[in-house]
Amino acid sequence: MSFIRRMTHPAPSSAPPFIKTLLGEAQPRPPVWFMRQAGRYLPEYRALRATAPDFISFCLDPEKAAEATLQPMRRLPFSAAIVFADILLIPRALGQDVWFETGEGPKLGELPSVEQLRDAIPQVAERLGAVGETLALVRATLEPNRALIGFAGAPWTVLTYMIERQSSDREHARSYAWQHPEQVDALLAILVEATAHYLAMQAAKGAQALQLFESWAEGLSESQFIRLVVAPHRALVARLRELGVQVPLIGFPRGCGALAKLYAESVEVQAVALDTATPLAAGREIQKLKTIQGALDPLALRAGGPGLDAEVERLLEAWGQGPYVFNLGHGILPDTPIAHVEKVLARVTAG
Amino acid sequence: MSFIRRMTHPAPSSAPPFIKTLLGEAQPRPPVWFMRQAGRYLPEYRALRATAPDFISFCLDPEKAAEATLQPMRRLPFSAAIVFADILLIPRALGQDVWFETGEGPKLGELPSVEQLRDAIPQVAERLGAVGETLALVRATLEPNRALIGFAGAPWTVLTYMIERQSSDREHARSYAWQHPEQVDALLAILVEATAHYLAMQAAKGAQALQLFESWAEGLSESQFIRLVVAPHRALVARLRELGVQVPLIGFPRGCGALAKLYAESVEVQAVALDTATPLAAGREIQKLKTIQGALDPLALRAGGPGLDAEVERLLEAWGQGPYVFNLGHGILPDTPIAHVEKVLARVTAG
Repeated sequence: MSFIRRMTHPAPSSAPPFIKTLLGEAQPRPPVWFMRQAGRYLPEYRALRATAPDFISFCLDPEKAAEATLQPMRRLPFSAAIVFADILLIPRALGQDVWFETGEGPKLGELPSVEQLRDAIPQVAERLGAVGETLALVRATLEPNRALIGFAGAPWTVLTYMIERQSSDREHARSYAWQHPEQVDALLAILVEATAHYLAMQAAKGAQALQLFESWAEGLSESQFIRLVVAPHRALVARLRELGVQVPLIGFPRGCGALAKLYAESVEVQAVALDTATPLAAGREIQKLKTIQGALDPLALRAGGPGLDAEVERLLEAWGQGPYVFNLGHGILPDTPIAHVEKVLARVTAG
Repeated sequence: MSFIRRMTHPAPSSAPPFIKTLLGEAQPRPPVWFMRQAGRYLPEYRALRATAPDFISFCLDPEKAAEATLQPMRRLPFSAAIVFADILLIPRALGQDVWFETGEGPKLGELPSVEQLRDAIPQVAERLGAVGETLALVRATLEPNRALIGFAGAPWTVLTYMIERQSSDREHARSYAWQHPEQVDALLAILVEATAHYLAMQAAKGAQALQLFESWAEGLSESQFIRLVVAPHRALVARLRELGVQVPLIGFPRGCGALAKLYAESVEVQAVALDTATPLAAGREIQKLKTIQGALDPLALRAGGPGLDAEVERLLEAWGQGPYVFNLGHGILPDTPIAHVEKVLARVTAG
């Protein structure tokens, strides 16, 4: 088997429980964080967001982004903070316009040429220096036993946005991948290199773990999944290690269904984040190879009640004995009652 | 194991190869049909469609629907025809308005009460008698070695339309299922009963196999998949057998990812249709239990070229030795070149 279970450097005993878990050490109680935990379900987030002229400016203002990152940590017992940023900062740093229109999601300008994108790679980490500053500010404030996560969109997911230029079901990008395989390979290689430098900068500034968000792994045939997801993730992980990045990595191939096992076997991340549709038995199989993270349905969290309680118990029972990070299977929804989050966290952290 | 591999009545030697394959007898060359093979990629379909005032009228005009069903059979060597109809005929027959707006997909009126829906069940098969007439017309024309498939939307998928009332990502329906589990169970039970009678009528009128389209199995947690998909399919299959339906059944839990195996083990259909994202090895595992059908990416078919050729070879090599029906993983796209379809069918049928 080509995968590695642990890093070459085991976690020091002073490492936060979240980091120890990523490195394969199951904890008495699973550490917990929620995707989009810094977000619109918090009134203090909505107030802070209103002070920035637009979403991109908000992400690139280190003081505001650090505050957004820390808001959920103050009121909720999350084991890790995730830096407040956006996966579309990379295309922007590569020279493709990105803006957000309220209620419509992201919009992107014309895709630059391969040559233009390639020429921009050396500037990416510097252009996104604000994210590094955010990380440094947060790490200086956060308690030592709580970890700080950096992240980036995975190459294929970012490329789907760059090709589609707006929210969609990705059909155009998936068609493009069938029609222009060499072009897509060239674009993915550029994103691998740019993302590696961006993430290396994040680790240097204080990120203690890095998550790759492959939000659009769904609907790909196995052959396309290998080409568009597995191969770029392998290349990115290798490049990060070449650049000296030693922090644990979490891969999140959302919507990949039965291909999650292939991902876990093929990509040398330390942890695989699982989405809502993951069968409990499939998660246990992956847990034999890696730490797993997930996979509470955000709709169940929003709904609350006995259905939510039962889901939480099911996950803890199925996965809680091995190395497991409790999380959602997708981002928390803006209209989720905070009381539901508090109740779940109380259950998970109280053991 | 509770599943059955074959029907109690094996296929007579005169049965079409497609039917023999569904009953577990692998053929020298896999039979082949394509979801939405009667559709907009054919110019003769577009011309015929233009003669009907609206889509529902078109579906419920037996002569026109029979002609649409037969059009692809005339010019392409498909092994089976599928009756031209729509999965939203059921809610319409249950008293919920359904109409189609060009470019926007289906629209539905207000959801009737549970009592109103329940009262409508005895009329469903009669109200959809036109579909039976279509089947009889097609069966009278089609060559004996080519099979005729009937179909219905599976209960959960139909219910998502009834709740959402328009095209969407089903988030509202999935939330509703968390919030109102008893109500959803009651609605699913109504759909099971109505669909059983509708499909029994189709079998009586000439359908030699029946496919259940669970087009919205995606994004469900395992517990919700069991409740919303597996349980209603099991109930529907049992009810069909009680009603004396003996034809083989195909279940298509589209987008269910790693839950496909659970489906195959739990639901007593004879064949499982697999979607594009199914790993080849996962398909082979399911093929040990059932006939499998699928799963060429419709985007690869539309793109054509060496990528398409390679996908076809991969599928034939991985699945062609066992009981296998060649098909797409999702419906054929309207702008698919007919030449691509011809080339794939020539390859599949020439062995």
